[in-house]
Amino acid sequence: MSEIKDITSRDVDFAKWYTDVVTKANLVDYSTVKGSMIICPYGYAIWEEMQKVLDKMFKDTSHENMQMPLLIPESLLNIEKEHVAGFAPEVAWVTHGGKEKLDERLCIRPTSEVLFCDYYKKIIKSYRDLPKLYNQWCTIVRWEKTTRPFLRSREILWQEGHTMHATKEEALAETLRMLHIYEDFQKNYLAIPVIVGKKTEKEKFAGAVASYSLEAMMYDGVALQNGTSHYFGNGFAKAFGIEFLNKDNKLETPYQTSWGVTTRMIGSLIMVHGDDRGLVLPPKIAPTKVIIIPIGTSNEVNEALNTLEEELKEAEITYKIDNSPKTPGFKFAEAEVKGYPIRLEVGPRDLAENMFTIVRRDTLEKIRIPKNELISKIKEIFKVMQEDMYNKALERRNSMIYEAHDYQEFTSIALNKPGFIKANWCGDEACENKIKDDFNMKSRCLIEDEEIIGNCVCCGKKAEKRLYFGRQY
Amino acid sequence: MSEIKDITSRDVDFAKWYTDVVTKANLVDYSTVKGSMIICPYGYAIWEEMQKVLDKMFKDTSHENMQMPLLIPESLLNIEKEHVAGFAPEVAWVTHGGKEKLDERLCIRPTSEVLFCDYYKKIIKSYRDLPKLYNQWCTIVRWEKTTRPFLRSREILWQEGHTMHATKEEALAETLRMLHIYEDFQKNYLAIPVIVGKKTEKEKFAGAVASYSLEAMMYDGVALQNGTSHYFGNGFAKAFGIEFLNKDNKLETPYQTSWGVTTRMIGSLIMVHGDDRGLVLPPKIAPTKVIIIPIGTSNEVNEALNTLEEELKEAEITYKIDNSPKTPGFKFAEAEVKGYPIRLEVGPRDLAENMFTIVRRDTLEKIRIPKNELISKIKEIFKVMQEDMYNKALERRNSMIYEAHDYQEFTSIALNKPGFIKANWCGDEACENKIKDDFNMKSRCLIEDEEIIGNCVCCGKKAEKRLYFGRQY
Repeated sequence: MSEIKDITSRDVDFAKWYTDVVTKANLVDYSTVKGSMIICPYGYAIWEEMQKVLDKMFKDTSHENMQMPLLIPESLLNIEKEHVAGFAPEVAWVTHGGKEKLDERLCIRPTSEVLFCDYYKKIIKSYRDLPKLYNQWCTIVRWEKTTRPFLRSREILWQEGHTMHATKEEALAETLRMLHIYEDFQKNYLAIPVIVGKKTEKEKFAGAVASYSLEAMMYDGVALQNGTSHYFGNGFAKAFGIEFLNKDNKLETPYQTSWGVTTRMIGSLIMVHGDDRGLVLPPKIAPTKVIIIPIGTSNEVNEALNTLEEELKEAEITYKIDNSPKTPGFKFAEAEVKGYPIRLEVGPRDLAENMFTIVRRDTLEKIRIPKNELISKIKEIFKVMQEDMYNKALERRNSMIYEAHDYQEFTSIALNKPGFIKANWCGDEACENKIKDDFNMKSRCLIEDEEIIGNCVCCGKKAEKRLYFGRQY
Repeated sequence: MSEIKDITSRDVDFAKWYTDVVTKANLVDYSTVKGSMIICPYGYAIWEEMQKVLDKMFKDTSHENMQMPLLIPESLLNIEKEHVAGFAPEVAWVTHGGKEKLDERLCIRPTSEVLFCDYYKKIIKSYRDLPKLYNQWCTIVRWEKTTRPFLRSREILWQEGHTMHATKEEALAETLRMLHIYEDFQKNYLAIPVIVGKKTEKEKFAGAVASYSLEAMMYDGVALQNGTSHYFGNGFAKAFGIEFLNKDNKLETPYQTSWGVTTRMIGSLIMVHGDDRGLVLPPKIAPTKVIIIPIGTSNEVNEALNTLEEELKEAEITYKIDNSPKTPGFKFAEAEVKGYPIRLEVGPRDLAENMFTIVRRDTLEKIRIPKNELISKIKEIFKVMQEDMYNKALERRNSMIYEAHDYQEFTSIALNKPGFIKANWCGDEACENKIKDDFNMKSRCLIEDEEIIGNCVCCGKKAEKRLYFGRQY
């Protein structure tokens, strides 16, 4: 089948396989606008499913959506020094409006901390005004040199949560609450196992006190950072002069967080679950859950389709019928490329026996089901499939995590085995830099629930922390 | 009540009243980013309700959402000559990425026709590829000199539909189909009467063959263009070299449409329905349909609130409880500013009699309802209120449409009576220009369902057409 759609095998050339899948499944198309991609309807539908679930999770935890301006005046970006140092090199600058040169240039938001701070300053006066729990769904721009669909792009669709709190404790709790909401979403909807943890000082977000990330491992052992949640302390608040009167009528500075996930998660879905036939979507996030392929156009088939449509609609199972004039074989291959969780064949031979044939996309298993049990069976399969996909990904990931005790062992693993390496670390950035230079592996995040036995894997000095290392997209 | 929130009377100073309402109802806030506004949670929630309804209408008519790049290279914008002439004076130009000057400057999309054409050229090869029915929800930028919240802004949230068809007839039908979907939405959800019609050559969209618009009349008689739908013929397609093989294997050029509505519709909602106490939202579009104000905190009240919440949730009626420590009077005023369709008071005196008191926001009528009939009564009131609001707006609008038979009559109406003027027209742009110069009134759209009796209202020559004229936001 895979020949029909001409997808490179993922074990032969993973990068080429990825590009083949994103384009043949019609998730994205290349644009003549350099560095930007066109998100095609099928790719966008996946993003809409993600938005629907996450937006509900945010609202259920009292966050409110709003919309900040797209453009940031240079002077506003400049207020927080670490932040501007981190972002200024990669922003797009607007210098002209129509024919006129602007007095002050404006950047297209690379992230919106400064815009929110500017707003907080106006609206936060008293402890009664806190907390502020905001989110926005929008586009950001970061002027990347090399780009790849969903993974690295000059333009990114994302959500950015921004909150402000009366106390340090509350802000820290919010940072972790949102991290765990992301974790829940990625595990239970995307069926992607993630390691969640704190970033090192070197890897944290520009201007943050602490950054936490969700680290997923792709099929090829390379890491994809699937989301971040940041605790800012009151650094931005101080730089912006945001203060509130506490219950004792004294001025205090509030504490801040921000957190975000992007369409990059679609890249993750592809690279964790996809196979040589194309995309494989977990049922809970697939925009179309069942693809129906009629075999022939007899009256029996058409009648069966009508009943089927009614049943699926009533059960709220999204479906599509492929009525195109292509051959069934071609339709099967196309259904596989697109990763629809279940393929349902409706043919005269099955119907004569009051049966349907369905095919699970993840296992390619063919299952014959009595007509009157179809809906309940499909629901059952979705449930099993969702769990199976998660467990399969978890098993593969776990099998590709190694422990290195010294630099020789680290070197041998790094050069021979794709995946993550767990290791002790002295806490010195020099060791992180050396590992980065030697193997192109960055620290992913701290491991905080394991005992530290032994010395730093790099310099051999006393270990203070444990880290995951991995190459990254 | 209105003193509490300090809203200027709309009959005293309509512009000031508008600003008071948008800020006091917390719909928007001013940003330090010149020309841009912050859409606050309550304003954004209204936009989300609009998006939900419209998005379903688009999908039900087979349109697919997708996402095009934010930035347009200058050379791409330049391909269609009328289009670039119309938009180039009002775009924001990106000239630098990070520290580097770009080889070619890019504008932030003011609209995305050229991006879609660039894409169509890649994907449309055969009649089998048609029609293409796309939509995107996004932000656009137009470098306006003067701005007003929701009405005119440098940055606009909108949706833009873009479609391509094999025949002229089909494209024209699509243009009108979408115009009527907008009309349906505005009449039946926003409760806003709209005049729909074709724009004159002078007023049409840059690059279009024909533009249709939805013209709403605000409380002060001024027009607000609430949406547009354009037919492009095959002008862009020819400029971009888009061709497809028809059934006879011959090359043809396809026909194009585009259509859009923006957050400007929120401005319309305010200025059509609002009153001196603030916003008045039609039940079908209000994000929060019922505001509950408890009187006191007795056990009876708290128990009643619990039951109430369950009932409202089950009936899928959105609500909020105002539990803040403010006085009931203050809460009533705030509820009025925010325009919640129904205010529900829960107090011990009513409860002792097994009653609730509700207040309709549009009429401010107080209604006492037996406890066990509450939900059915609320639903009934929503239905009546939705219709009443439409009819009230329709009546007012109709009372402010005048017919002018000659220039003297036109002058007298234009100078003395706010509203629209219907008049015959010779078809010459010079007459449109004169009326614009003399009275700052533009043609709104053609009247195509009325007989033309008499001569051009401006020059007195033979009339070819009939037009609505009006001042505009």
